[in-house]
Amino acid sequence: MDLRVQKGASMIVLDETSATSLYMQIYGQVKGQILSGRIKEGSRLPSIRSLSVSLGVSKNTVKVAYHQLCSEGYLVNRARRGFFSQRIDQELFLNLNEKNAGKAAEARPLGEGTRSSKQVIRYDFQYGNLNPRDFPMGIWRKIANQVLSPINSRSMASYPERQGECGLRTEIMKYLHMSRGVSCRANQIIVCSGTRFSLGLICQMLKEEFGGVAMEEPGYDGARDVFVNCGLEVAPVGHWEEGLDLGELTQSKARLLYLTPSHQFPTGSVMSIRKRLELLDWAERNAAIIIEDDYDSELRYGGRPIPSIQSIDGRGRVIYLGTFSKSLSPALRLSYMVLPHPLLERFYEKFRKYVTGAPWLEQKILTSFMADGHWERHLRKVCLANRKRHDVLIRSVERVMAGRVRLHGKNAGLHVLLEFKDGSFEGERLRQAGAQGVRVYPAAHYWIHRERYPGNMVLMGFGSLAEKEIEEGVCLLGDAWFGR
Amino acid sequence: MDLRVQKGASMIVLDETSATSLYMQIYGQVKGQILSGRIKEGSRLPSIRSLSVSLGVSKNTVKVAYHQLCSEGYLVNRARRGFFSQRIDQELFLNLNEKNAGKAAEARPLGEGTRSSKQVIRYDFQYGNLNPRDFPMGIWRKIANQVLSPINSRSMASYPERQGECGLRTEIMKYLHMSRGVSCRANQIIVCSGTRFSLGLICQMLKEEFGGVAMEEPGYDGARDVFVNCGLEVAPVGHWEEGLDLGELTQSKARLLYLTPSHQFPTGSVMSIRKRLELLDWAERNAAIIIEDDYDSELRYGGRPIPSIQSIDGRGRVIYLGTFSKSLSPALRLSYMVLPHPLLERFYEKFRKYVTGAPWLEQKILTSFMADGHWERHLRKVCLANRKRHDVLIRSVERVMAGRVRLHGKNAGLHVLLEFKDGSFEGERLRQAGAQGVRVYPAAHYWIHRERYPGNMVLMGFGSLAEKEIEEGVCLLGDAWFGR
Repeated sequence: MDLRVQKGASMIVLDETSATSLYMQIYGQVKGQILSGRIKEGSRLPSIRSLSVSLGVSKNTVKVAYHQLCSEGYLVNRARRGFFSQRIDQELFLNLNEKNAGKAAEARPLGEGTRSSKQVIRYDFQYGNLNPRDFPMGIWRKIANQVLSPINSRSMASYPERQGECGLRTEIMKYLHMSRGVSCRANQIIVCSGTRFSLGLICQMLKEEFGGVAMEEPGYDGARDVFVNCGLEVAPVGHWEEGLDLGELTQSKARLLYLTPSHQFPTGSVMSIRKRLELLDWAERNAAIIIEDDYDSELRYGGRPIPSIQSIDGRGRVIYLGTFSKSLSPALRLSYMVLPHPLLERFYEKFRKYVTGAPWLEQKILTSFMADGHWERHLRKVCLANRKRHDVLIRSVERVMAGRVRLHGKNAGLHVLLEFKDGSFEGERLRQAGAQGVRVYPAAHYWIHRERYPGNMVLMGFGSLAEKEIEEGVCLLGDAWFGR
Repeated sequence: MDLRVQKGASMIVLDETSATSLYMQIYGQVKGQILSGRIKEGSRLPSIRSLSVSLGVSKNTVKVAYHQLCSEGYLVNRARRGFFSQRIDQELFLNLNEKNAGKAAEARPLGEGTRSSKQVIRYDFQYGNLNPRDFPMGIWRKIANQVLSPINSRSMASYPERQGECGLRTEIMKYLHMSRGVSCRANQIIVCSGTRFSLGLICQMLKEEFGGVAMEEPGYDGARDVFVNCGLEVAPVGHWEEGLDLGELTQSKARLLYLTPSHQFPTGSVMSIRKRLELLDWAERNAAIIIEDDYDSELRYGGRPIPSIQSIDGRGRVIYLGTFSKSLSPALRLSYMVLPHPLLERFYEKFRKYVTGAPWLEQKILTSFMADGHWERHLRKVCLANRKRHDVLIRSVERVMAGRVRLHGKNAGLHVLLEFKDGSFEGERLRQAGAQGVRVYPAAHYWIHRERYPGNMVLMGFGSLAEKEIEEGVCLLGDAWFGR
């Protein structure tokens, strides 16, 4: 290892031989020290110039790291005075003591929106948590009561089936076949406790052969985190309304591709059937594997859904991922993957003795819920409820911000991406919203190459709010941003 | 990559540049092809000689792989005729359609014991599943009923707290402090869905810095699987009654060490306090990390427990692992790890947006169970019940097999290791037991260097049986082995 060390108020150690870029190392270590309290609140950090000298890196490397930390709210840049660390409540960060208000949400920002603790947020357009009214508590409780009976003592005293309960896998198989055209047998389904864990197993299984993975840019940062943590090289491939750039994909030399084709995250675009076929052809020619993450496929508000890539793949080139987090409950921690036959063998070999992380009780309740027809009814209900929320959001934005913004990713899922036509900077827009008591979310971290991000977008989730709240929140945003 | 390929009835591809040894590659690929059905039931495999020629490896390499496959029941060696693949019911292997009898158990063997489907097993000394009578179903149901109330709708519609519910972590903290002397704050505890998943996160966190890991030989194969799957080099370090061999440890150059000091798996020895202090000293001198897996620390049947290594570590060198699988239920999929302060920062950085795989409901029920005093009562109850099973087992073995066997790992946990003094081979002993309707388990796979394994042991779990069954089972074993 070739280490460069900077000592002082806080110490930064750079490893030149690491796969992590120097700016990410600086970024990560400063962030870690702020979170751990080693860098005290309000401390002035070394200037860009002095840190670059003491570490022996270019000024630009330090600058990029500092700016990233600023945009995430760890640092603040005070004109002519330098960079100062911000107050980050570590306990809050870790969701300790957040009994009522603040459960950890997928898109909890550490950015501008959250910090000012005196700011009262009345309308939170977060993405991740669902509306409490949509969870079928009564039915869930009733089934739990039936399941937790003495005749099931043996099941509660035993390991669950390794890849998930057979009954649940059979229900998932039937559902996927009906709704997404996915063709598989129950033994191809692996029940996991969250998509990150599904991806973690995939990485362990494929890393040695594939080395790296390509993914959409912008793309789902949660998947990217897993790839990076598992040591895969991540190649971002450009993508916007027109779909993935095949030229860039080919150039990347990657043979593993992670996609969200049915409602691209975060842009919300839907991949055309032509592009899907092109990608399958690419996979076949390159002996590649496509990981198709169909994370919110249940929620469609218009038009016919395009069949999953898995359903048109005849060669076993697609791993299909699904989750119950968007349509039923993220508290269940239930996800699944469908492995193509050629990978099943490898899975059995690697994970022969692994037992799914999903508890028996959770699986058993869901199995009954699906088998008894509640799932189908529930889907109709949440689809309708979210379509109403979606429609109110779209209408309100059109009414209040007509001509000034563009909405991406309509007609599906639980979020939209809002783009400011005047190119205004997301940080400023988040601050303005916060000052009006409305929280919207930054989009920058969905890009790996930040310079590709135009900087003028915010993410708005609508799955947890009531229609009235959405309407009022958007009105306040209109005031905040365009000062009617 | 330097690949050696053998074509024929089935194809084996060896990768000389892989970290996996050649014999493990042959073993893994043949096993995979048998499980997937690519190698048909009853096929004759290439002879040792011809396969070694076609792959360009030594005969010994093929021989070790074949013998391993024989001892696990994938192949059978027919005198003067060669090696034949055995019938492996893939569905059975995957625990499909095993509704009643056969839930996946930790120690389900694929070895001699299971295959002959006509054999009726009346006494199964499996290790992993618990006795259904010990699970507190009534209380669990009552708490579930309270928890699944409309006032908790928000929790069921939201992500759980990232590192586990604060309430549960606080209960675990209090329990660990009282019972194991573990000193930590709730924010150092990460709730996971099984020890393999805890270890998976640890590997992702430490792989880059540490590269490899040392572990006890023999040792827990489940942990070894995770290390190998995550790409860590595993260095086996000799260990028997007298404890870990510090010379071998130093020689291994490893700076990460995985241990089961309080009831070594599978030998059951207890690491002395002197050895614990020596290891901490080793860790301090080498800037090393010790992963202390205290998997069955709740179950002690004699003598004072020795304090955990974590409790005597003042320098943040120990990661402490625990699970509810042995003392409460493996169906819950609940484990936890306690990170030392120096690693917390790294954990936050790597897993900032990860959400625990443990569902909210499971966590919430367990929190109430612990907070209301049920946990303490439950522990007393299961400790007593298992002590009785343990005592019956020990007494029966002493009565029936006096002088012919040696028992390792008494006075704790849910298993013992039985050693045949006459050096008889485990495979033969498993077969004889099976013929009498008794299943005991192979021990070979706990060794990485199989040549170190004397070959004369079997593993016996007693946690799921009734006392009467244990007594009768041991009597039958006496008949089977020593033909009274």
